[in-house]
Amino acid sequence: MVERKGEGLARKREFDPDEVVEKAMHLFWEKGYSETSVRDLVDATGVAHAGLYAAFDDKEGLYAAALAKYQKLVSETLYAKLLSADAGLAAIREFFGFIKMASKAAPFRNGCMMANTSVEFGDGNDRLNKLVHANLKKLTSAFKNALANAQAGGDLSADRNIDDLAAGLAASFQGLSILARARAPQKIITGAVHAALAQLD
Amino acid sequence: MVERKGEGLARKREFDPDEVVEKAMHLFWEKGYSETSVRDLVDATGVAHAGLYAAFDDKEGLYAAALAKYQKLVSETLYAKLLSADAGLAAIREFFGFIKMASKAAPFRNGCMMANTSVEFGDGNDRLNKLVHANLKKLTSAFKNALANAQAGGDLSADRNIDDLAAGLAASFQGLSILARARAPQKIITGAVHAALAQLD
Repeated sequence: MVERKGEGLARKREFDPDEVVEKAMHLFWEKGYSETSVRDLVDATGVAHAGLYAAFDDKEGLYAAALAKYQKLVSETLYAKLLSADAGLAAIREFFGFIKMASKAAPFRNGCMMANTSVEFGDGNDRLNKLVHANLKKLTSAFKNALANAQAGGDLSADRNIDDLAAGLAASFQGLSILARARAPQKIITGAVHAALAQLD
Repeated sequence: MVERKGEGLARKREFDPDEVVEKAMHLFWEKGYSETSVRDLVDATGVAHAGLYAAFDDKEGLYAAALAKYQKLVSETLYAKLLSADAGLAAIREFFGFIKMASKAAPFRNGCMMANTSVEFGDGNDRLNKLVHANLKKLTSAFKNALANAQAGGDLSADRNIDDLAAGLAASFQGLSILARARAPQKIITGAVHAALAQLD
């Protein structure tokens, strides 16, 4: 009996939830929620329907886990330098330099999964909306941290409103994610990055 | 026979395609492509499946017609002042002033249907991608027209790169459409508009 129970538990843990969520994240990021079928998720993760439902309740539960994973794995990595204690204008320049470089290649040409979620769900899903709003708050705070440091160090004029500027940089980034996903001409993407950075002058 | 044929034709023209496309546009703008069912379209337009398929081939054909209608009815109206021969910085300020005002209310809190299409389809649909790219070109040209006039009139420094600035304003607008659709805090939307306009100083 004890051995059988052990076997049952072992079977339940046949897959690593973290790995499954990351695979689902890539699929949802690329295709969006509606266009990703449960069959696609089973194929991509190698986990049967029943296993996915047992672990995540339903497709929406798996999407929420994938979006939370995106926050930790992608957003927080991208924002980390902006949030560091000594971040300044150079960190903002590096951020947009990375976006310009990455917008041409997978997975970033899929845009920003947070922006994609905003478009697909609007404000129609409380759980996802909370994740999107928390991410937006983190992004604007990260820009504001770097701008405040730059202002304190004399690299940015003291009369600039850094709340507005942080919101503007966040909007520029979200717009760039749309341009990347639409495969806009590189000239437009590069121009928009230059314009975003010119706001710092 | 002639009368019966006449009746048949009359029945075929029972609905006004323009009106049907506009109703479909509003539904697709709000819900996106995948989440709008043919049943939803039948309910919203009052036209039976068979009539919609006869006129637009399929759901994608109706979406393409709706996106083209959006371009004519919404985008071109919004861009008109920017494109006029005497447009300058005031036209750009009015454009973003309108976006700030409208982002709180239907239908503009649904974001920009072009940006929404970019997110939902990526570059996976040639017909829609052409509409999205043509719109982006029109938007950046409209901003560039107003910026060139401002430069010629001395309202904008001659050393500003107006290609970059036009691309930057387009990205700001696309980003704002995402923020509106996500029902971002009004403070962020207002800040992003202020930042977009500060690029003109």
